[in-house]
Amino acid sequence: MDAYRDLETHFKKLNTLGDALSVLHWDASVMMPVGGSLARSDQLATLRGISHELLTDPKVGDLIGTAENADLDPWQAANLHEIRRSYLRASAVPQKLVEALSQATSACEHSWRTAKQDADFARVQPLLQKVLDLTLEEGGILGETLDMSLYDALIDTYEPGASASAIGQIFEDYAAFLPSFLDDVLEKQKRAGEKPIPEGPFAIDKQEALARHLAETVGFDFSAGRMDVSAHPFSTGYAGDRRITVSYNPDDPILALMAALHETGHSLYEQNLPTEWSGQPVGQARGMAIHESQSLLIEMQACRTPEFVSFLAPLFREAFGEQDAFRDENLLRLYHWVEPGFIRVMADEVTYPAHVILRFRLEQALLSGDLPLADLPYAWNEGMQGLLGITPPNDRLGCLQDIHWYAGSFGYFPTYTLGAMTAAQLFAAATEAEPDILPGLAKGDFSILRDWLKRNVHGLASSVSSDEIVAHATGRRLEPKAFESHLKQRYLPK
Amino acid sequence: MDAYRDLETHFKKLNTLGDALSVLHWDASVMMPVGGSLARSDQLATLRGISHELLTDPKVGDLIGTAENADLDPWQAANLHEIRRSYLRASAVPQKLVEALSQATSACEHSWRTAKQDADFARVQPLLQKVLDLTLEEGGILGETLDMSLYDALIDTYEPGASASAIGQIFEDYAAFLPSFLDDVLEKQKRAGEKPIPEGPFAIDKQEALARHLAETVGFDFSAGRMDVSAHPFSTGYAGDRRITVSYNPDDPILALMAALHETGHSLYEQNLPTEWSGQPVGQARGMAIHESQSLLIEMQACRTPEFVSFLAPLFREAFGEQDAFRDENLLRLYHWVEPGFIRVMADEVTYPAHVILRFRLEQALLSGDLPLADLPYAWNEGMQGLLGITPPNDRLGCLQDIHWYAGSFGYFPTYTLGAMTAAQLFAAATEAEPDILPGLAKGDFSILRDWLKRNVHGLASSVSSDEIVAHATGRRLEPKAFESHLKQRYLPK
Repeated sequence: MDAYRDLETHFKKLNTLGDALSVLHWDASVMMPVGGSLARSDQLATLRGISHELLTDPKVGDLIGTAENADLDPWQAANLHEIRRSYLRASAVPQKLVEALSQATSACEHSWRTAKQDADFARVQPLLQKVLDLTLEEGGILGETLDMSLYDALIDTYEPGASASAIGQIFEDYAAFLPSFLDDVLEKQKRAGEKPIPEGPFAIDKQEALARHLAETVGFDFSAGRMDVSAHPFSTGYAGDRRITVSYNPDDPILALMAALHETGHSLYEQNLPTEWSGQPVGQARGMAIHESQSLLIEMQACRTPEFVSFLAPLFREAFGEQDAFRDENLLRLYHWVEPGFIRVMADEVTYPAHVILRFRLEQALLSGDLPLADLPYAWNEGMQGLLGITPPNDRLGCLQDIHWYAGSFGYFPTYTLGAMTAAQLFAAATEAEPDILPGLAKGDFSILRDWLKRNVHGLASSVSSDEIVAHATGRRLEPKAFESHLKQRYLPK
Repeated sequence: MDAYRDLETHFKKLNTLGDALSVLHWDASVMMPVGGSLARSDQLATLRGISHELLTDPKVGDLIGTAENADLDPWQAANLHEIRRSYLRASAVPQKLVEALSQATSACEHSWRTAKQDADFARVQPLLQKVLDLTLEEGGILGETLDMSLYDALIDTYEPGASASAIGQIFEDYAAFLPSFLDDVLEKQKRAGEKPIPEGPFAIDKQEALARHLAETVGFDFSAGRMDVSAHPFSTGYAGDRRITVSYNPDDPILALMAALHETGHSLYEQNLPTEWSGQPVGQARGMAIHESQSLLIEMQACRTPEFVSFLAPLFREAFGEQDAFRDENLLRLYHWVEPGFIRVMADEVTYPAHVILRFRLEQALLSGDLPLADLPYAWNEGMQGLLGITPPNDRLGCLQDIHWYAGSFGYFPTYTLGAMTAAQLFAAATEAEPDILPGLAKGDFSILRDWLKRNVHGLASSVSSDEIVAHATGRRLEPKAFESHLKQRYLPK
């Protein structure tokens, strides 16, 4: 038991360093003047280096060996499991490779920023090749350590327990479902008339006030969090201090307010994690798919229901004045608008999975060597044509749009759509179990939904696997069916 | 030379951790929601603990021993001197005592907050006794290590090289000068009529815009810094990212704007430190007395001259509208107003040293055992009566007003008045050497003053001692004479 307690102390310290890192990251995106960036990089690298040393300290391995014979309760055992996983992953990869990857991704990410602006993939290609080569090396080592395929080992970084084969089945089901469904949705949408266009400008301070009000409505606790402005919305923080950022556009409040609700979904999950385990690995949010499911459950499932939009539309009119686009039925149409486009982050929920499926297919081909990097732009555009029937006119709108690969994140993309599908399955189960959820949303009352989520998802933290969370909460493994049913019901109701 | 280079690498890392700590501190005072405070304390304690381990690593002692035989240039030699000083101080004090002090000061500071509100010294007395006992232990060890008296070793924490005997001489000179001078000033002030009272309210956003404009006028670089709001003004940050905070009062813009200029003085010093040494001990600001001299040189010396006030008054009228208090001559009278009061931080420059002299006398008596803690309130009030002729009606306005002792900072107070006297001596030398400084201030042009400060103070960082900085810049050791001449010239001109 002593060994287990020592591990808890050690990982509490690691977690505390992670908390400090999250504040430094937030500050760099939200507060820091440009002059601070070089020294800030040093601060982040130094803290990361110290964390890595602490995590890979050989004494941790010894303690784990001893602790495995201790008499642990289920949460302690799950905590030890998470500790073991972190230690194995971190100590498997040689320090030299960690540093080489850090340098390569930093250089590649830097070059990507201007290459993207200039739509010039060739410029960043050699740097991306370096990142890819090193990622293959890392993935190979991790795969051997964890006894899984290279790609599964990379996915495991973001979503422990997920596998390419299981994801592939789910995604191909959706890829088969999409084409005719999309045609039908677009045809029906066309018949219903033009897209309502909000007429701006919309004062930023009013958008911000409404965003804060909505976050509070969902349940965000401002005594244990903040909401600020940054170039791209994100959420971060630590126990007791969760931070959301939003990016406002004076011409369009539609995106910003849903983005605020999306980040609120993430933060609500974090705010509801069990405080008694907040410093331990088992007390952290489960992988990225579950995390994304919580943001999408709020943003896409709950907050685009006719019930919630009937609560939201009057708030729009109050904040920005009466206009046609903010009539209940028009705001609902706006929030249900489907339109195939080039950019993933702008996509509606129907076409979004196509963007992810494309990346899922391509990153596997890149990692297996089937797709040489030089052919990526072509393969990307061909894939877009196949999935959504559109071809990007340049690589800025194509394979240069997302930072992930250029920052070394291979295996991340699938979690977005796993999250969307998990959200649909969870929300269906929640509203079936608690018939008062939907009438509550019409009054801006999220309490029943929140309680259900806390009981079935948030409060479990990492004590069980993602699969188990979904299975316990919904009675079934994750399937594409619930998501497809949700889309049919929302976009093509009988 | 290798040993010296290794030390540079090691202390660069320590400095980087210090930079990260400054961001976490700033955030805690300016941004953090109340829910974050417990975990934030853990973050700060963890980073401080890691820093302490790095600083006291026995290999540092070995490297210093080897490096002392290396062929170093003057800055490297000064850097090694500072490294040695930090190492000696940190490794002398046993870890157990460091932790005991940290716990005792944290408990005492916590209790002080409510004891101050309730003006109840007795409540916090036992906790302060504990802090005092541990400080005596620490001071004894440091004094032995550094071969100086206990109190000098404590002063050395904040102002290396200063001694109680030298400070005592300077302070007693001023204590003798003050009574009749103060009488004359007050009498002259009374004859000139009532104090002009600004009529508010004064919009915070206008105060803030003016504060930013003034900071820029002095030379603060907003691409390498920020200005925000906190309960008490302070300045912090790291190379490339200096942060000032100001506290605004809607009824009175007078204090806030000078406080902004005060903090700008601190930050200007930091922004002008030599960047090539920014990660090393020698590249840091010299002790607290020189730091305070730079804030007071800007706030008290430069920005309360008739020249600068003639630049400032029109800005007040532009921001807040015409009113009697903002006529040039009335704003000058406001910024030269002298009034003995109970509270140090509200004091004018004439009476401020009396507050510090009182604390200097009392902390020596407390540390020597001559003054039992139970008698502190009485001794305080008696001292105030002797120095300024007023007696605090309660301990909130007396010995409970300042956090320093309750937070374990004995030996800090003298630096305030050393700073004020240094500021006067430096400003006299600067304006004598550069006759265009004062006419420049009348136009809001600080460039000549800034250049002089950069050449004579800022650019030297910690490469020489405080005494040497003053002697080189002014041709004399620090004396009370320049300060007294300044006061006579400002308050009792012939």
